[in-house]
Amino acid sequence: MGNKNELLQKIEEGYGKFSKGQKKLADFIREYYDKAAFLTAAKMGEEVGVSESTVVRFATALGYNGYPEFQKALGELVRTKLNSIQRMEVTYGRISQGEILASVLQSDIEKIKMTMESIDHSVFELAVDTILNAKSIYIIGIRSCAPLASFLGFYLNLICPDVKLVNTNSSSEIFEQIIRVGEQDVVIGISFPRYSMRTLKALEFASNRKAKVITLTDSVHSPMTIYSSCNLIARSDMASIVDSLVAPLSVVNALVVALCMKKQEEVITTLETLEQIWDEYQVYSKDELNMVGDKVELTMKMKTGEDDE
Amino acid sequence: MGNKNELLQKIEEGYGKFSKGQKKLADFIREYYDKAAFLTAAKMGEEVGVSESTVVRFATALGYNGYPEFQKALGELVRTKLNSIQRMEVTYGRISQGEILASVLQSDIEKIKMTMESIDHSVFELAVDTILNAKSIYIIGIRSCAPLASFLGFYLNLICPDVKLVNTNSSSEIFEQIIRVGEQDVVIGISFPRYSMRTLKALEFASNRKAKVITLTDSVHSPMTIYSSCNLIARSDMASIVDSLVAPLSVVNALVVALCMKKQEEVITTLETLEQIWDEYQVYSKDELNMVGDKVELTMKMKTGEDDE
Amino acid sequence: MGNKNELLQKIEEGYGKFSKGQKKLADFIREYYDKAAFLTAAKMGEEVGVSESTVVRFATALGYNGYPEFQKALGELVRTKLNSIQRMEVTYGRISQGEILASVLQSDIEKIKMTMESIDHSVFELAVDTILNAKSIYIIGIRSCAPLASFLGFYLNLICPDVKLVNTNSSSEIFEQIIRVGEQDVVIGISFPRYSMRTLKALEFASNRKAKVITLTDSVHSPMTIYSSCNLIARSDMASIVDSLVAPLSVVNALVVALCMKKQEEVITTLETLEQIWDEYQVYSKDELNMVGDKVELTMKMKTGEDDE
Amino acid sequence: MGNKNELLQKIEEGYGKFSKGQKKLADFIREYYDKAAFLTAAKMGEEVGVSESTVVRFATALGYNGYPEFQKALGELVRTKLNSIQRMEVTYGRISQGEILASVLQSDIEKIKMTMESIDHSVFELAVDTILNAKSIYIIGIRSCAPLASFLGFYLNLICPDVKLVNTNSSSEIFEQIIRVGEQDVVIGISFPRYSMRTLKALEFASNRKAKVITLTDSVHSPMTIYSSCNLIARSDMASIVDSLVAPLSVVNALVVALCMKKQEEVITTLETLEQIWDEYQVYSKDELNMVGDKVELTMKMKTGEDDE
Repeated sequence: MGNKNELLQKIEEGYGKFSKGQKKLADFIREYYDKAAFLTAAKMGEEVGVSESTVVRFATALGYNGYPEFQKALGELVRTKLNSIQRMEVTYGRISQGEILASVLQSDIEKIKMTMESIDHSVFELAVDTILNAKSIYIIGIRSCAPLASFLGFYLNLICPDVKLVNTNSSSEIFEQIIRVGEQDVVIGISFPRYSMRTLKALEFASNRKAKVITLTDSVHSPMTIYSSCNLIARSDMASIVDSLVAPLSVVNALVVALCMKKQEEVITTLETLEQIWDEYQVYSKDELNMVGDKVELTMKMKTGEDDE
Repeated sequence: MGNKNELLQKIEEGYGKFSKGQKKLADFIREYYDKAAFLTAAKMGEEVGVSESTVVRFATALGYNGYPEFQKALGELVRTKLNSIQRMEVTYGRISQGEILASVLQSDIEKIKMTMESIDHSVFELAVDTILNAKSIYIIGIRSCAPLASFLGFYLNLICPDVKLVNTNSSSEIFEQIIRVGEQDVVIGISFPRYSMRTLKALEFASNRKAKVITLTDSVHSPMTIYSSCNLIARSDMASIVDSLVAPLSVVNALVVALCMKKQEEVITTLETLEQIWDEYQVYSKDELNMVGDKVELTMKMKTGEDDE
Repeated sequence: MGNKNELLQKIEEGYGKFSKGQKKLADFIREYYDKAAFLTAAKMGEEVGVSESTVVRFATALGYNGYPEFQKALGELVRTKLNSIQRMEVTYGRISQGEILASVLQSDIEKIKMTMESIDHSVFELAVDTILNAKSIYIIGIRSCAPLASFLGFYLNLICPDVKLVNTNSSSEIFEQIIRVGEQDVVIGISFPRYSMRTLKALEFASNRKAKVITLTDSVHSPMTIYSSCNLIARSDMASIVDSLVAPLSVVNALVVALCMKKQEEVITTLETLEQIWDEYQVYSKDELNMVGDKVELTMKMKTGEDDE
Repeated sequence: MGNKNELLQKIEEGYGKFSKGQKKLADFIREYYDKAAFLTAAKMGEEVGVSESTVVRFATALGYNGYPEFQKALGELVRTKLNSIQRMEVTYGRISQGEILASVLQSDIEKIKMTMESIDHSVFELAVDTILNAKSIYIIGIRSCAPLASFLGFYLNLICPDVKLVNTNSSSEIFEQIIRVGEQDVVIGISFPRYSMRTLKALEFASNRKAKVITLTDSVHSPMTIYSSCNLIARSDMASIVDSLVAPLSVVNALVVALCMKKQEEVITTLETLEQIWDEYQVYSKDELNMVGDKVELTMKMKTGEDDE
């Protein structure tokens, strides 16, 4: 690929000659460049387990005039998604499709494991309590996080009385939908790299309005944490053009289960009411394959090939 | 809970006195009742590893007049979501919120592992090739599967020329959106228990129109497999009102990565074009936090607490 | 067209020989068959200005065994949209495209005029007051009425504190969104022929929950009026596959203006707050061409053809 | 109202002393300030029917240092929606709710009449032919124009093979949806004051890609016309916070009717296919009240009050 990122190329070419500390830094940058771009030299050293001066010398060794220029190169690496293609090439370029499948699933398992190890249980409990005590619950997630927000919104609506899924649609903008947010409300912001500036600004607004802010994001270094008093950290993965949101989805599942357990009676009432409504009012039959008879019939058809023409 | 399902209650009460084979059956039903409701006595025996007559005797032991009545009770168990509350109670009722978190995440890891073990690599490769060779790609997923469909649609649109996310909205119905589907097209149907009848019918239509049908569903027993020539199996989880779709999402990730690797040059071109368009035409700045400077500044603010009032 | 509706054909063939009263009936049926299908013989006579027995004899003259069979034929006429193609043929078949434009616009003017003449001012005032006094405002309109509902929802949200646009989307159904409707709320249902059964059922539910129900529909014969205590009547038009909703949109405009005048101070506050938010928080510039300078520059470009390559 | 716009206030205060030509200018500005902000002094004179020097002197009479400063004040008048509240006050402030209803409907009739008088028939025919000959048809309308775009999209989809409604949603941006637009395609842009910059930029992109561009907008002065080769002009109305889009909707109706007449056979085939699909595949009954029996029954219930409890 002609448009290979310069920094990645330098790291690749020099890798053989790197010291042990430099190799650690190189690995860290390849894996977490999105985070690396945030860090001061001291902080990066701390994360990787080398000294600040090792970091600075690493920058010079790569041909940069000091850490700031190196950091600028890191920024360029982050800037375009094109780089993710390069990273994909590195990760998946030489393996078969079958191996890609196994490799992606294994990587997603790792992300959930890392999430289990790093997530703060007291923060999770705080999130549950904050949601339970809120008057209105706003959920914001856009771009690749929109499906997560929509999924969470669907289930919270069965549990809590006033849930508002904030979406960007053809008619209205985010701020038109959160303009009435207040002290008694909670705003749940979901954002993973490449972080959404619109989500961040909505959280800033909510925070200024004294609303509670809960975030679901990928690290303590995430800008989403600035306005949040309750950060749920789940590992995402960027080794592809697709941002893997498997671990965040798992945390969403846990949130729904925990809320359900706290509001069991209300949820049962809601579900019972919905069942009654279906029976009494719905024109449509429920869009679900529930009747054993139907199912068996369908399965039989499949087995005997009745449907074949 | 007063409205405890009768069948579950019978199983619970009798469990201590069950034979080894009956315990296997009881466990199977508690875990996979949604599937159990489909099965003939012979097939259930096969799945669990007991004889058909053990299954029939188990039905009688529980107090039913033979297998058909027992199967009807299974159907009732499936029918309402209320039962998932009962199952949640069983699974999560006696543990703390922190343990719920760990338990859900661990369960999601297991589902991905089971998916890795059971998914057929040649089917995955067939899915990739079918998508690459299609003229138009239709993606259908509704209810809790809508976020998965939307996520897949977003990324496929960057890779393939004609991707149509079929959604049910206030204006149009599914069939109005797939009315022109033909032989050269592929329809990807995503459905997990409680299976969607509308998705099933759309796949039937696509199949009659000789379109290729790919399904992402939870088992070979899923009714979705009836009209599909290419079944991607991923484990979902119903031990909650929330259907965990973590493993299916991981398979979607793998699909996107594999397609990307096959169409690298096209994806690079698409992404480069999008970058150029942003630069040339967009009124808005990109909704992404890309500039190192900004990030550092934000991070600094956070560290020094400048934003605190 | 081979599939010409039998009843229309009979009317066309016999028209020359009809009595004056029969011609009136024939014209009424061609224009308002959708309504005609509702009416008893007595009622149809009343609407057209002929006696009940004239109506019954008309049915026999057309070759039907009495009024019930004739009414069944009317039902068939209504049943499929195909008939609207036939009606289009009748209305627009022999005129040029330019004349189609003039004819459609003229017809829309007539519908607004008829709406002005027939709409009940005290009902309009009741609608305004009911909306102003409601706790939550739900708006339901699906199929071709979805754009009207969305338009009304967008503006009401700027005026009233808790507006919920009920939509059918891939994730949730109507009843999941209105499950918490109560006595203090108002539900605004918008439905025109071909009336939506789902909207009707939602209004029935709202009515049983003692919520206020306001309807925007096309006549006092509309089934939507069953559950409504406040019916805004606006003329729609079905002389095409497209249901002209111009007059209903005009009534929506009037509703927004009247509400705005009643809540001027609140609307000003909302708009000012939105302006401030844009200035303080928005990453994006507003998506509106506001700056005179920009406009002039753009206009200049246009005039001088600077943009031409 | 304390925040009364300065320019409007000056006009109001001075009105009594204005010359006949100045009164014409004052009326024009109050009615069409959104357009006035675009115009040079010469052009404004031409529109109003006074000389350029009368316009310049009017600016001075109001206390501005010449026309450029006056134009800047016009820009401020346009800038915020707050002004529309003031204009509403002027138009509707002293009349009853009943009169508001009549006044809004009458104003909408006028807009359609003005549209009839000013729309160019050959442009309408060009639009119809361009749409019929296009490979793919993209429809763009956002903010208050989103319902119009959605309405047009719904019906075009029944007439033409490849219709893409471009919407801004939580997942994808406009440019991601039009990235493959090409020479054989048509892009229909709908935008009324306050014009959308995003729609404009999308049209610019389409134009650079040599796609045909059709616009539906409010005047030849609209910036939307810059990139369009086929401008459908329909009068909108801004005398409220709500932009009246009644006349544009009427033009959309005419477009659908004209296209239907040209593709009668295809539309019949599509509708027949949809009917068949309903019969063969739909789980749901059609969401329409079609059966005479049902209707009569419902109507009867209504009349006899059977539903009352």
